[in-house]
Amino acid sequence: MIIVMQLGATQEQVDAVAHVIKNLGHEPLVLPGEDRVAIGIPDSLGQDERIRFEAILSAMEGVSKVTQTSRPYKLASREFHPQSTTVRVRDVAIGPGTFTVFGGPCSVESYDQFLGAARMVQAAGAKVLRGGAFKPRTSPYSFQGLALEGLKIIKQVSDETGLVTVSEVMSGDMVSVVAEYVDILQIGARSMQNFPLLIEAGRSMKPIFLKRGPSATIDEFLLAAEYVLSQGNPNVILCERGVVPIDRSYTRNTLDLASVPVLKEYCQLPVVVDPSHGTGVAKYVQPMALASMVAGADGVMVEMHPDPREALSDGSQALTPKQFEALMDQIRGLAGYLELSL
Amino acid sequence: MIIVMQLGATQEQVDAVAHVIKNLGHEPLVLPGEDRVAIGIPDSLGQDERIRFEAILSAMEGVSKVTQTSRPYKLASREFHPQSTTVRVRDVAIGPGTFTVFGGPCSVESYDQFLGAARMVQAAGAKVLRGGAFKPRTSPYSFQGLALEGLKIIKQVSDETGLVTVSEVMSGDMVSVVAEYVDILQIGARSMQNFPLLIEAGRSMKPIFLKRGPSATIDEFLLAAEYVLSQGNPNVILCERGVVPIDRSYTRNTLDLASVPVLKEYCQLPVVVDPSHGTGVAKYVQPMALASMVAGADGVMVEMHPDPREALSDGSQALTPKQFEALMDQIRGLAGYLELSL
Amino acid sequence: MIIVMQLGATQEQVDAVAHVIKNLGHEPLVLPGEDRVAIGIPDSLGQDERIRFEAILSAMEGVSKVTQTSRPYKLASREFHPQSTTVRVRDVAIGPGTFTVFGGPCSVESYDQFLGAARMVQAAGAKVLRGGAFKPRTSPYSFQGLALEGLKIIKQVSDETGLVTVSEVMSGDMVSVVAEYVDILQIGARSMQNFPLLIEAGRSMKPIFLKRGPSATIDEFLLAAEYVLSQGNPNVILCERGVVPIDRSYTRNTLDLASVPVLKEYCQLPVVVDPSHGTGVAKYVQPMALASMVAGADGVMVEMHPDPREALSDGSQALTPKQFEALMDQIRGLAGYLELSL
Amino acid sequence: MIIVMQLGATQEQVDAVAHVIKNLGHEPLVLPGEDRVAIGIPDSLGQDERIRFEAILSAMEGVSKVTQTSRPYKLASREFHPQSTTVRVRDVAIGPGTFTVFGGPCSVESYDQFLGAARMVQAAGAKVLRGGAFKPRTSPYSFQGLALEGLKIIKQVSDETGLVTVSEVMSGDMVSVVAEYVDILQIGARSMQNFPLLIEAGRSMKPIFLKRGPSATIDEFLLAAEYVLSQGNPNVILCERGVVPIDRSYTRNTLDLASVPVLKEYCQLPVVVDPSHGTGVAKYVQPMALASMVAGADGVMVEMHPDPREALSDGSQALTPKQFEALMDQIRGLAGYLELSL
Repeated sequence: MIIVMQLGATQEQVDAVAHVIKNLGHEPLVLPGEDRVAIGIPDSLGQDERIRFEAILSAMEGVSKVTQTSRPYKLASREFHPQSTTVRVRDVAIGPGTFTVFGGPCSVESYDQFLGAARMVQAAGAKVLRGGAFKPRTSPYSFQGLALEGLKIIKQVSDETGLVTVSEVMSGDMVSVVAEYVDILQIGARSMQNFPLLIEAGRSMKPIFLKRGPSATIDEFLLAAEYVLSQGNPNVILCERGVVPIDRSYTRNTLDLASVPVLKEYCQLPVVVDPSHGTGVAKYVQPMALASMVAGADGVMVEMHPDPREALSDGSQALTPKQFEALMDQIRGLAGYLELSL
Repeated sequence: MIIVMQLGATQEQVDAVAHVIKNLGHEPLVLPGEDRVAIGIPDSLGQDERIRFEAILSAMEGVSKVTQTSRPYKLASREFHPQSTTVRVRDVAIGPGTFTVFGGPCSVESYDQFLGAARMVQAAGAKVLRGGAFKPRTSPYSFQGLALEGLKIIKQVSDETGLVTVSEVMSGDMVSVVAEYVDILQIGARSMQNFPLLIEAGRSMKPIFLKRGPSATIDEFLLAAEYVLSQGNPNVILCERGVVPIDRSYTRNTLDLASVPVLKEYCQLPVVVDPSHGTGVAKYVQPMALASMVAGADGVMVEMHPDPREALSDGSQALTPKQFEALMDQIRGLAGYLELSL
Repeated sequence: MIIVMQLGATQEQVDAVAHVIKNLGHEPLVLPGEDRVAIGIPDSLGQDERIRFEAILSAMEGVSKVTQTSRPYKLASREFHPQSTTVRVRDVAIGPGTFTVFGGPCSVESYDQFLGAARMVQAAGAKVLRGGAFKPRTSPYSFQGLALEGLKIIKQVSDETGLVTVSEVMSGDMVSVVAEYVDILQIGARSMQNFPLLIEAGRSMKPIFLKRGPSATIDEFLLAAEYVLSQGNPNVILCERGVVPIDRSYTRNTLDLASVPVLKEYCQLPVVVDPSHGTGVAKYVQPMALASMVAGADGVMVEMHPDPREALSDGSQALTPKQFEALMDQIRGLAGYLELSL
Repeated sequence: MIIVMQLGATQEQVDAVAHVIKNLGHEPLVLPGEDRVAIGIPDSLGQDERIRFEAILSAMEGVSKVTQTSRPYKLASREFHPQSTTVRVRDVAIGPGTFTVFGGPCSVESYDQFLGAARMVQAAGAKVLRGGAFKPRTSPYSFQGLALEGLKIIKQVSDETGLVTVSEVMSGDMVSVVAEYVDILQIGARSMQNFPLLIEAGRSMKPIFLKRGPSATIDEFLLAAEYVLSQGNPNVILCERGVVPIDRSYTRNTLDLASVPVLKEYCQLPVVVDPSHGTGVAKYVQPMALASMVAGADGVMVEMHPDPREALSDGSQALTPKQFEALMDQIRGLAGYLELSL
């Protein structure tokens, strides 16, 4: 932590800050400068110490600002965990050297619809089947999902096809139920800072698919992962799905694709991109999915629907089976070029 | 709903769109124009119909875009509810003609700390006491609140002082517990789209203090209120607490004060401003609290702490008791000028 | 400048950084820490040195990040200029203790329209008349202003009424022309970083009304002011006019009212708020104008038009003469309460 | 244009709106609905008519909102210009089927530095040389470029190497000067709405490299292009270079890569991506440059410097010659795979 003094701060003010730091149990390091003084606290501080120190010191006379010198996350930090994590779920490995496609409809609508989607996803060559049983919907009047019935359909379809499944859980008290039926638990963008849910997700020891919140900074995103990791569960997959846009009239979100190399540099966890929510428009899914591969993502999550025009939710961003197949062909081609196994 | 055709769309394409609308059970109204045709669906559509129609129609050949003509919220709409809601909690009325101050520390830290804060809040003339027992914290390593013990302290302090209380509940399964100890249930900014929580909050029939999410549009905010209202609970207080900022280096959020007259115009519910989180800096709380009054807010929520430098959370935005008193004096003065009762 | 080393940086890497700093002509100060080392450069650095040092040092092995310790502006900094600036134009003083209203139409459309507007502005009690002769318009097909003819009208109306005038100049080569006809030169939001214009505006020695760009940080805004000040022209008025919004459907911009106390704290220059552009909606101008007063602004700029429905630009945000009068009455009342002279 | 009436608007209010539209010279089309009425104006309106009509109609009693049905740009619209534009500069063709790399230093610092950079750029296989003679700098204390001397160096180096050149022009009055020395005129992000500059750039008939402003919507960006095109100059290259970020601590901007397919769909002009400014960090340039190719961009602009540590501006985002070469190799490989000619 560095305390920067105001221009013209007096020696008494500098001494007072140094004195308070000593009283707080740390050794201050005074850096005299040409036009102002800075004071460092070389020790590493706990999160609560930081907050308390910042409150105390920034309120002192003569202090201009207080800045932090280290990143707040530890378990989600590549500095502490140099080796990349590969999340393994049955025969699927998500991590370096592979590119995993998570495909399927936004919502599970019926056994027939979901099995149909699964067969198409599988035939096209994708390994993980997505589908929502519990749907977070902006309006209370929108379709809210089939709930438990949806989970049972997911399980049955998974058993029949052998596909690994991922589905969203929206609250901590539902984690154990969803975990019974589904392979990977998804935490949605709007739940990224639902802390009781993050803790239960961590305790479940299931692989967690964590979506970035629409206005989350990288630090906030990695601290959400840290919540899960801090429960002893190392299997977290990060998902970039777009941030709040400057312009909502052509796309729903702004896909922050540069977050892929940023996250890969600072964190050891696999990173997956969701171009369906990231753009909100079916026709932009293909270019953004392929761009994600080249940017270094470990996979993409893509919405498809046996008949998008009949979809009960998010139909305008879902690919048709034919479009999904075409995308898989292009992904396969590019994976060959990039030497990634699908 | 209006479907705008592309420039040069053929008569066949226009007819096809009209035909599909008829098949969907609605009567299309074709608007021929100089350089392009638009087609209206005059009937009002349900939320799911909208989504499905938009998916179907926007995918048709010759269609340029599909736009909605009405706001998606009904119960939270002043068009449907012209009379302003006053939320009453014991002797406190929150609504037109009054200005209610919600004061207190970020977190309940101990009985002594909270009683001390309550006495100061009461002596300064505020009517509602705030304090967190469950704290949503960005980092898992930060103080997470006293939980049930905190709730008990809140209840005890409320009994001793007679102050109305508000405290956050973070998940649906905790609503009934928090509702036992606290007068008003707060739903935090990061939980604004925690839909299971919104539904349980609605069912509790307790007054709900709903904070706007940091990147929530006005429609999303009012739809979150709609979730609560749709459970038959009319007692929702809306709280503006700042949106994601362009610049994080001087304030933590951008307080969107113009949302006050916008919300008051489109919605019948009372609106309260939180300048403590809205700026994140103690010294800007006073000007923004007073500005909120003039902008038409029904109250403010202000963090204070018996000793901000000892606060276990958010110390840098909390007022000292002396600053809080000074603010209350200014609020009292301005309320006199504006003819608002405190 | 502080260089924070990576976790586990070797002693050799720390020494190498210290060595490079010495070679660059500065004395490094090494701060050993528990889990990582930081290295300070206590000397104050020029802007170019900072950039070069940051590039050099951040590329060195073992370096985690490089942070600046001081604000980049000097002439626009209250630390260096503790006394508040009052900008004086004829009999109008813009600064502490006063509240100046800048009123008038978006565009000068004709002599009659502008004189009519001026008479109304004056009768209502405002001191400065605004009106655009050169209009920056998003579309090339929109009304672009009367140009030189508009300037002449401004001058003539100013001579007849005695009102101080402000009008926008859009390029450096037009500064001397506009300066001939107008009292205060406005630099629009979209020109905030038009650096040749800022320099010419500074050289003109005229008072400069500088609008904040829609995505400008506080530092960028004050550095734009610094451009003007660095030419020896101390008469800059800062104008907050809204930043890019989260939600464009209810207001055009998000008025960042907390920037008023922020700017007043860090900079000595007067601050004026433009609630007309800041919201883009006539009915929100009144609450936001009054809120600006309470927040500490030194004035407001308000669009009015003799007949907004006939306005050639931005009609939907202009007040009618009657609304403008009503607003002036409320401003007068509140100014009395706040002990500000109009 | 569609006028949506309020819920419960009276027949008189609907009639009044229809009457006003008739008086304005257009035929209203009333769309009765279940719970509210909408009124269409089928004729296409000019930009000024739109603004005036919106002001008039939105102020009428009973009106809820007024929405536009068509895009405001024409010359920059693929609807009107279905065939993609290829911009040709000497032997370089920028458009479909090719991928053009614009490389070079941020600033021209000296003849030797610039010639050195040019030789490296050429040896690595890039076709266009970039370099700033006039530098828009946030701070007045930063290096502002060599100005005319810089232009002369650019010309001389272009003559010696045969490379096509691009350089920024910052004001309308400098267009003819810069146009004498440089092949392609760049309009920087901060000048995107410098309308006098856009008009002069259009008149020059030179190819224009137009960067998107940091908070510009797609419509605003295409209207800026429209300014140039409306002068009869069809040779505009659009450049995506990042928008205002949610988080400034890991990258300087958020590269909005999905804008590439959006722009390509709605506009016939070539689109180039600038990953150097788009991220602000040298190590993220490579993944974002390659992702741009796959996303459908027609080229990339990449900053490189013979010695980034000695760069007088933006050193931390420039590639070293070695990194630039490695990037060119990867671009060449991927271009082969994608069947694009370099």
